[in-house]
Amino acid sequence: MPMTNYTVELKNLKDQLLVMASHAEGAVSRSVRALSERDLALARAVLEDDNVIDQLEMKIDDVAIHLLAMAPLASDLRLITVAMKISQNLERVGDEAGSMARRIVDLVGEPQLQTDTAIPQMARLCLAMLREALTSFVERDPLRARQVIPKDQEVDAHNRELHRALSSFMVEDPGKITRCLALMANSRSLERVADHATNIAEEVVYLYEGRDIRHSSANAP
Amino acid sequence: MPMTNYTVELKNLKDQLLVMASHAEGAVSRSVRALSERDLALARAVLEDDNVIDQLEMKIDDVAIHLLAMAPLASDLRLITVAMKISQNLERVGDEAGSMARRIVDLVGEPQLQTDTAIPQMARLCLAMLREALTSFVERDPLRARQVIPKDQEVDAHNRELHRALSSFMVEDPGKITRCLALMANSRSLERVADHATNIAEEVVYLYEGRDIRHSSANAP
Repeated sequence: MPMTNYTVELKNLKDQLLVMASHAEGAVSRSVRALSERDLALARAVLEDDNVIDQLEMKIDDVAIHLLAMAPLASDLRLITVAMKISQNLERVGDEAGSMARRIVDLVGEPQLQTDTAIPQMARLCLAMLREALTSFVERDPLRARQVIPKDQEVDAHNRELHRALSSFMVEDPGKITRCLALMANSRSLERVADHATNIAEEVVYLYEGRDIRHSSANAP
Repeated sequence: MPMTNYTVELKNLKDQLLVMASHAEGAVSRSVRALSERDLALARAVLEDDNVIDQLEMKIDDVAIHLLAMAPLASDLRLITVAMKISQNLERVGDEAGSMARRIVDLVGEPQLQTDTAIPQMARLCLAMLREALTSFVERDPLRARQVIPKDQEVDAHNRELHRALSSFMVEDPGKITRCLALMANSRSLERVADHATNIAEEVVYLYEGRDIRHSSANAP
């Protein structure tokens, strides 16, 4: 019975997306912890897990292409293509976590800077955005997705502020330049995680409201 | 006649993708020129044109969803979803060009650094990758697409080298920190343009060879 297969596979697609999301979230929070605690082993674990995320992206694409051929309704086409886009965003979240984990090599022997607390704080904000965006997808709640989008500007502001603070540290004490550069790069990685969460939220709004709110003035950088 | 409409729309989709590609390429080369020549007006033109790129992305998505509902063959489903992914990558190329153009504000009053020639050189490499990836799509030439992929490592090496050079400049002369940070960020933007060109090339290989070469060990970071 093809219809049953179709329904099962569609559920399967959503489930795999959630598995992927939990790997991506886990990767970000563990890489931030690895940085705060100068924990090389934890950083390595993040890099190994990135492979799982990559495999999930390819698997989701396969299932999606297969489902597109059977989709009975136009709204299903939208659901399936949105799932592919969410998966692509999650894969990039995984990549950013990997970049953060890799940067620990530059930091592991260096003492903490005073601004080091800013990174875990930003990470909490970004992870909450990601979780909310995914929840809005699962619960078909475009209003909840809409609430994620303005938070991107908060994260951008944190990133700019940290960038400024680190720039002045570098001018005051060139001995801190390597650490400051690594922290700047981590801050930018988190800012990108928030961008991906925003993209996912915009896709959810598009999926359930049928309205494309990407690139609208409210979200302009 | 629905079949004729379908064929026309499919051609339309490819044409719009090429229009989008030429805007994205133009944005990168103009933003690099704006930086080299400290040309604020040109930087502003890049930012204005980003809107055109964004609109094209949404239009392409609309056409693609519409086409998916009519696609007669499984290979068409693949073509259409690949077109959506290429469009998403081009949109991000446009964003990177916008970021570069925005950074000119930090640089416009500052004299050139000796390493400033490294950026136009990297840009040429990245733009060639982008052009080749798009040509391989148009000419259905997966072999040509495969030749793009290893060049990403060249660009990565340029980026790392420039990063190292700029780091030592900063240590030697804290007065150069602002300029060095802006150049680092531009170098990273170009490195991302090369990543997007690589993604497009991988999609072309997948489309015409039916083989998913993303995340294969040869492309590992």
